[in-house]
Amino acid sequence: MPTVEMVEYEQSEGLVREVYDDILETRNITFIPNFWKTIASHPPTLARTWNSIKEVMAPGKLDALTKELIAIAVSATNNCEYCIYSHTAAARKQGMDDEMLGELMAVVGMFNETNRLANGYDVDVDDVFRRH
Amino acid sequence: MPTVEMVEYEQSEGLVREVYDDILETRNITFIPNFWKTIASHPPTLARTWNSIKEVMAPGKLDALTKELIAIAVSATNNCEYCIYSHTAAARKQGMDDEMLGELMAVVGMFNETNRLANGYDVDVDDVFRRH
Amino acid sequence: MPTVEMVEYEQSEGLVREVYDDILETRNITFIPNFWKTIASHPPTLARTWNSIKEVMAPGKLDALTKELIAIAVSATNNCEYCIYSHTAAARKQGMDDEMLGELMAVVGMFNETNRLANGYDVDVDDVFRRH
Amino acid sequence: MPTVEMVEYEQSEGLVREVYDDILETRNITFIPNFWKTIASHPPTLARTWNSIKEVMAPGKLDALTKELIAIAVSATNNCEYCIYSHTAAARKQGMDDEMLGELMAVVGMFNETNRLANGYDVDVDDVFRRH
Amino acid sequence: MPTVEMVEYEQSEGLVREVYDDILETRNITFIPNFWKTIASHPPTLARTWNSIKEVMAPGKLDALTKELIAIAVSATNNCEYCIYSHTAAARKQGMDDEMLGELMAVVGMFNETNRLANGYDVDVDDVFRRH
Amino acid sequence: MPTVEMVEYEQSEGLVREVYDDILETRNITFIPNFWKTIASHPPTLARTWNSIKEVMAPGKLDALTKELIAIAVSATNNCEYCIYSHTAAARKQGMDDEMLGELMAVVGMFNETNRLANGYDVDVDDVFRRH
Repeated sequence: MPTVEMVEYEQSEGLVREVYDDILETRNITFIPNFWKTIASHPPTLARTWNSIKEVMAPGKLDALTKELIAIAVSATNNCEYCIYSHTAAARKQGMDDEMLGELMAVVGMFNETNRLANGYDVDVDDVFRRH
Repeated sequence: MPTVEMVEYEQSEGLVREVYDDILETRNITFIPNFWKTIASHPPTLARTWNSIKEVMAPGKLDALTKELIAIAVSATNNCEYCIYSHTAAARKQGMDDEMLGELMAVVGMFNETNRLANGYDVDVDDVFRRH
Repeated sequence: MPTVEMVEYEQSEGLVREVYDDILETRNITFIPNFWKTIASHPPTLARTWNSIKEVMAPGKLDALTKELIAIAVSATNNCEYCIYSHTAAARKQGMDDEMLGELMAVVGMFNETNRLANGYDVDVDDVFRRH
Repeated sequence: MPTVEMVEYEQSEGLVREVYDDILETRNITFIPNFWKTIASHPPTLARTWNSIKEVMAPGKLDALTKELIAIAVSATNNCEYCIYSHTAAARKQGMDDEMLGELMAVVGMFNETNRLANGYDVDVDDVFRRH
Repeated sequence: MPTVEMVEYEQSEGLVREVYDDILETRNITFIPNFWKTIASHPPTLARTWNSIKEVMAPGKLDALTKELIAIAVSATNNCEYCIYSHTAAARKQGMDDEMLGELMAVVGMFNETNRLANGYDVDVDDVFRRH
Repeated sequence: MPTVEMVEYEQSEGLVREVYDDILETRNITFIPNFWKTIASHPPTLARTWNSIKEVMAPGKLDALTKELIAIAVSATNNCEYCIYSHTAAARKQGMDDEMLGELMAVVGMFNETNRLANGYDVDVDDVFRRH
């Protein structure tokens, strides 16, 4: 149970209802996920966050699946359980299988390791890696 | 200057030299980056880390560029300056331009934000996002 | 169930009992929260942590509610579930409503995002932001 | 030097110029900070981030200074050097002195400590801290 | 329930079975912990991770218990619940009692605090702490 | 240059001077490190932090070197450059050589990796790892 009361679809009105309807249509789903029902406790945060995500996740030079993989990578690094489940579900819908997830997690794990080696020894950036 | 003395190519011998030669050949580069010269202060860590990275970064179901993008996502989330520069350089070599990097950073930023909203309100995972 | 056995009030004696009594009185509560009962498994950590928190959280130039909001900000950034619930409860007791929490979470989310943009691109600090 | 080329005011046009002019006016400053010049390498990220920050940082139930203090708290927890300097400078402009900063840092430090005690022992949330 | 299906010992074959048998023998246990059954969904990650851990955790200049204490320190800092329980159990098996755990958690908490003080004020490294 | 003015020994008086003298004597050094000179901008934080560290780092069931190794592990995981240098210097003074540091960093890196595998797949804690 989150630390605020969730706003159910039936209770929603005004800005919240508008966003809810846009979520249902854009995502082509038939329920409002708990994340949105929770942040709806502060309507401007709901609206801003949804509009930002809609813009950021639209396919561009990176396709939608790649963006979901990156979302999983970030969520696994930060340990956000909700986000891990929701983005894993979204990525699976777009074709991610266990092998792709395995490769993703291997890369995520690997660089969480090397990040600490580089920071822990305070390695200097090679000049050649900087822009000139 | 890192917290240990780096092992230059010319000084290297045995296991370290072997790994160095494999790095030069596999990566098709003509110098040993500081990261490897630093962890060479502990040869088993150098060998294990290089062999792991070589395996993990080989193209599989995810291509090499996607893996580098994930490496940048992890490094930006953790704030590893060395890793940000080295993986950005590697991704550029494989075709990443400013627009792709911009989309990547937008996704990374976005989910670092929503991770905190989900955790900060302790949102419950929707049942539908779990495997059944 | 934590990884150590909690020390119940009834079992407590000596230094632990003293700290427990001080917690009950200072906080004006009638039970010992699990956090304190858990770290009481190591009495010096209980005593030092309680004394530090009592000093740090006393109203100063920042008032008590502002300090609780900062505690929530830190706990949401780090994803400490226990801390999120206990500090949210404490802040509500001091008058925080859903709208204040919403604004707080919006700020926390926002800067977790911009922190990654600044780090991920390795932006240089503007000279004007440094002391002179 | 960041990993992309910064967009100077003089070079800016279209959406980037519009955002730059809004930053100068809203913040009442006479230069574009490096953060904005860097993310301007991806104009949609510049526009979205600026509009979000402008909305989030506007005084609401939390005043502007409290929001800056929270920004410092998040940035210190995440170790974002750029953000630490820019938000410390902004908070000083709004009246933060060394004593307030000292209290802020004490709270930030304290809860980064207790977050690990709570997580490291996996303390169970007290029922009374949950909503009912 | 993890986001992939776990591979039970009875179902395992080939590389997975080999690793499972090595885990049972090396660790002298009679069941495969969930961690290994989960990452077995991607056999190369199972094999590489197990071989790396076996190498890294073997007693060297640091003894096995010290290495487990460090594993707890990292897991508490990152908030990995699974890892906290498994490494705490492993350390207890090797003789860690509540007092040692208390001292460990005190050190972990303390430096999570001072890390933020040092970063939040951006303290310069003293020359004398660098190698010369 | 930190975000506050450091308090030099010569300028120090009262509580700050007392703490400075205790640092010089307890640590058997002849200068005040920048960390203390920086947090001295808020004398109560200086005094509380010093007293806490003195207590926490005193040899107990864990010896002083083990405690310094844990301090490095935490600082590398969090990426605190100042802390990495100061604790590495302190550990070397107590006998840590490159091989010990190498083993330490290997363990730190390894569990930063497995922490993300465990969290990213959301592995359930094995019952046997919990206390009974």
